Amino acid sequence: METIKEGDFILIRFKEKRYLKRVESDKNFSYKGGVLYYKDLIGKPFGISVGGLQIFKPTLEEIILYGIKRETQIIYPKDTFFIAKKLNLSEGKVLLEFGTGSGAATMVFSSAVGERGRVYTFEREERIFQTAKSNLEKFGFSQNVVIFNKTFNPAEVEGIKFDAAFIDVREPYPYVPQVWELLKPSAPIGFLLPTTNQVQELLKHLNPYFGDIEIVEILTRYYKANPERFRPEDTMIAHTAYLLFAKKLSM
Amino acid sequence: METIKEGDFILIRFKEKRYLKRVESDKNFSYKGGVLYYKDLIGKPFGISVGGLQIFKPTLEEIILYGIKRETQIIYPKDTFFIAKKLNLSEGKVLLEFGTGSGAATMVFSSAVGERGRVYTFEREERIFQTAKSNLEKFGFSQNVVIFNKTFNPAEVEGIKFDAAFIDVREPYPYVPQVWELLKPSAPIGFLLPTTNQVQELLKHLNPYFGDIEIVEILTRYYKANPERFRPEDTMIAHTAYLLFAKKLSM
Amino acid sequence: METIKEGDFILIRFKEKRYLKRVESDKNFSYKGGVLYYKDLIGKPFGISVGGLQIFKPTLEEIILYGIKRETQIIYPKDTFFIAKKLNLSEGKVLLEFGTGSGAATMVFSSAVGERGRVYTFEREERIFQTAKSNLEKFGFSQNVVIFNKTFNPAEVEGIKFDAAFIDVREPYPYVPQVWELLKPSAPIGFLLPTTNQVQELLKHLNPYFGDIEIVEILTRYYKANPERFRPEDTMIAHTAYLLFAKKLSM
Amino acid sequence: METIKEGDFILIRFKEKRYLKRVESDKNFSYKGGVLYYKDLIGKPFGISVGGLQIFKPTLEEIILYGIKRETQIIYPKDTFFIAKKLNLSEGKVLLEFGTGSGAATMVFSSAVGERGRVYTFEREERIFQTAKSNLEKFGFSQNVVIFNKTFNPAEVEGIKFDAAFIDVREPYPYVPQVWELLKPSAPIGFLLPTTNQVQELLKHLNPYFGDIEIVEILTRYYKANPERFRPEDTMIAHTAYLLFAKKLSM
Repeated sequence: METIKEGDFILIRFKEKRYLKRVESDKNFSYKGGVLYYKDLIGKPFGISVGGLQIFKPTLEEIILYGIKRETQIIYPKDTFFIAKKLNLSEGKVLLEFGTGSGAATMVFSSAVGERGRVYTFEREERIFQTAKSNLEKFGFSQNVVIFNKTFNPAEVEGIKFDAAFIDVREPYPYVPQVWELLKPSAPIGFLLPTTNQVQELLKHLNPYFGDIEIVEILTRYYKANPERFRPEDTMIAHTAYLLFAKKLSM
Repeated sequence: METIKEGDFILIRFKEKRYLKRVESDKNFSYKGGVLYYKDLIGKPFGISVGGLQIFKPTLEEIILYGIKRETQIIYPKDTFFIAKKLNLSEGKVLLEFGTGSGAATMVFSSAVGERGRVYTFEREERIFQTAKSNLEKFGFSQNVVIFNKTFNPAEVEGIKFDAAFIDVREPYPYVPQVWELLKPSAPIGFLLPTTNQVQELLKHLNPYFGDIEIVEILTRYYKANPERFRPEDTMIAHTAYLLFAKKLSM
Repeated sequence: METIKEGDFILIRFKEKRYLKRVESDKNFSYKGGVLYYKDLIGKPFGISVGGLQIFKPTLEEIILYGIKRETQIIYPKDTFFIAKKLNLSEGKVLLEFGTGSGAATMVFSSAVGERGRVYTFEREERIFQTAKSNLEKFGFSQNVVIFNKTFNPAEVEGIKFDAAFIDVREPYPYVPQVWELLKPSAPIGFLLPTTNQVQELLKHLNPYFGDIEIVEILTRYYKANPERFRPEDTMIAHTAYLLFAKKLSM
Repeated sequence: METIKEGDFILIRFKEKRYLKRVESDKNFSYKGGVLYYKDLIGKPFGISVGGLQIFKPTLEEIILYGIKRETQIIYPKDTFFIAKKLNLSEGKVLLEFGTGSGAATMVFSSAVGERGRVYTFEREERIFQTAKSNLEKFGFSQNVVIFNKTFNPAEVEGIKFDAAFIDVREPYPYVPQVWELLKPSAPIGFLLPTTNQVQELLKHLNPYFGDIEIVEILTRYYKANPERFRPEDTMIAHTAYLLFAKKLSM
């Protein structure tokens, strides 16, 4: 049975809060209920309760929400989970992505295409690029990811035929023909667009390159886990972004 | 470049409708704009426009929505995409599922765990089991799936330690301790529950087996792809099910 | 106690359907469970069950949803109920409205301002105007309503200082200064706009006339009335319109 | 033209915040942009801009959201606006309400029934009753409201036939037959219920007293007023309460 080792990431749940920490035997986690010495966890299984805390092995979602360093607004897991599947990602697929941002979406895509797949991703801002690179390495998602500290440039990935593309930049419009060129026939493309103005503008640039357009928002509504007073949480995320999906048309 | 072959599945888009068909050279697709003879597609790339139709290579979502035979209400892709990631599925993971239903969720899980992963799934009703089996085989998802025509029974999967479990049966409550036994420490579990009564009841049965409970609904709001009059579709799916996620606690 | 009389409007509920009918003693209502002869209802109280039907006295919402003739897409009660209150309508208030459409919103406003209040409303299309007029008269909302078969024209209501205004036309932008002129200081104004493009455009025209801008959508999610399987309805209205509210700024 | 007088209530908007204040000539409003001396407002019209502030005449919604003292969670205007119309309130109607809470709903109902209408409302807790009474008097809603510092008791309103009833107490179930007795035939009744458990329980108690049941949630989604980047606010209220409406059945 797998047990907690030095250097492992753990997810600590304390009341309604969650923390992602690394087990370092000379460090500790101090909270309102006391202090957790990480060395006391070593050799124990994940999923234990200690002093009012619960210690779990983090999921990909928790790594993204509580573990990565953020230079930009991250894309929410609710959106990336959906995007990965709309892009039809699975073992061995090759994806083009830009901009990388903090790498949250890249992690989900890396996980979806697996060892034999590849994610080629571009981030033009040096500082954000370094954060993304460090996040990907720290959590073990860099093996199948090729990351460029550049504005997207087709020359860098010449000769690769991509199974899908995901674009998250403020002005994606001029890239539409270039990305079209790099994709396999019928390949899905996804865009993340925070504002209605961007969606309107992008819709004018897709023809004749991409068809079968879908635009969707994903809303998640969480509930309180109280069986005697079962009801939704009081507030929710109302908006992250509009997602636009389409497929390459052959000409 | 990949081209359309005899026997391939294709996604036909005609106006606002989508159809999933198989290319059989002696058959055709008749629609309001005329007739499409499948033999005329052979050798052409996917992603083409023909006679007012667009012909794409189907994605997993489209296989589920337009391709599979349904004996039961299928689980919507919006839900299964989210479930697959909340269960932290990735290449090589081993999942326990029951009941199989029409196999829609099984396909998403099969795709997520890849060749080296496994999905063990139970469906007790013979007729539904046959449909699921046939759907999985028809669309190429059976290689990493082991399907039982039985009520869930731990003895059938003895000795396997599962990375995650997904349960979609009307009364999941009695199975909680049995599934707990089969899971690795800290492993995520997911339940699909159409009614609030089921959520309330399940919440009473999770303790002390599972912690870190989350209950959520996924809502998708689609938009009309009209740049001059950009606005949501008039109606939407208001409810499919409540999703409950938790993680195994060690005792 | 009030009883059903010849000429009364009744709301018939049969299973999940509702019908608004007029009691005419020589007519009947035929349905899958049989025939209801209206003459048999006369002298009975409202709120009775007869042959699988329930007979109620219609509310304003039911008159709008099931009783009025429609030439245009009506404004939903969920929206008009909210608008009436955002416009701060109450007994004695004087409202400017255009366009009238089928009169559904006008009825809600007429009810809100009461006998001593007034609704001045403009509808330029003759056919729609006639329908609105007939709807308002048929259901008793015409006493405090002045309806013009004209494009909105300030000269028609010269000298009146309005407590509030509600505008539901495709291109409201040029009317902003004219309406501003007619309103009392600080008076609320409301706009109904189906598309995001219209909201964007209107936002550019409000300054310096109106401030304290709010833009909102109202969503209603209905539930099945089953205590053992309590859950939302399967589908819902996803979009009717964006509502924009503001208040007159003095210059 | 109406101008600002000593003692008037004003709504101050400063950036994204709103404040409801009373004009008292020896007092002032101090904010990050400076100090507003109320005496400087006297004699000016509502709807003016002063030193980065906008000064409006408050609407009923603003009185409720920013003006009243709260002893309990108030019912949101989005809910009360809808309730008032589902209860078919208009000039002259007579409503039964309990419990009063802070009086927010009572104000909306008082406004809807007008001078010739009446709201009879019960609040059993002395402290809450005093707050409600004071709120109603302060903002001028007490003329058509009769408020009891008592648990609801039919004997107190004997002989009155009510047009509608609204019930907002934790356990409304035992009152169903008593309220039924007091209502006119076919009269609408509304309940506010924060949890699904309460809705489930109430559904078991309505038969045979009330029919035509509807259960609904009202969701409001607000948008940022930026024409170049038009999009929803980041967060929203996800839940206040389930609203249940029904109508009296005659026996």
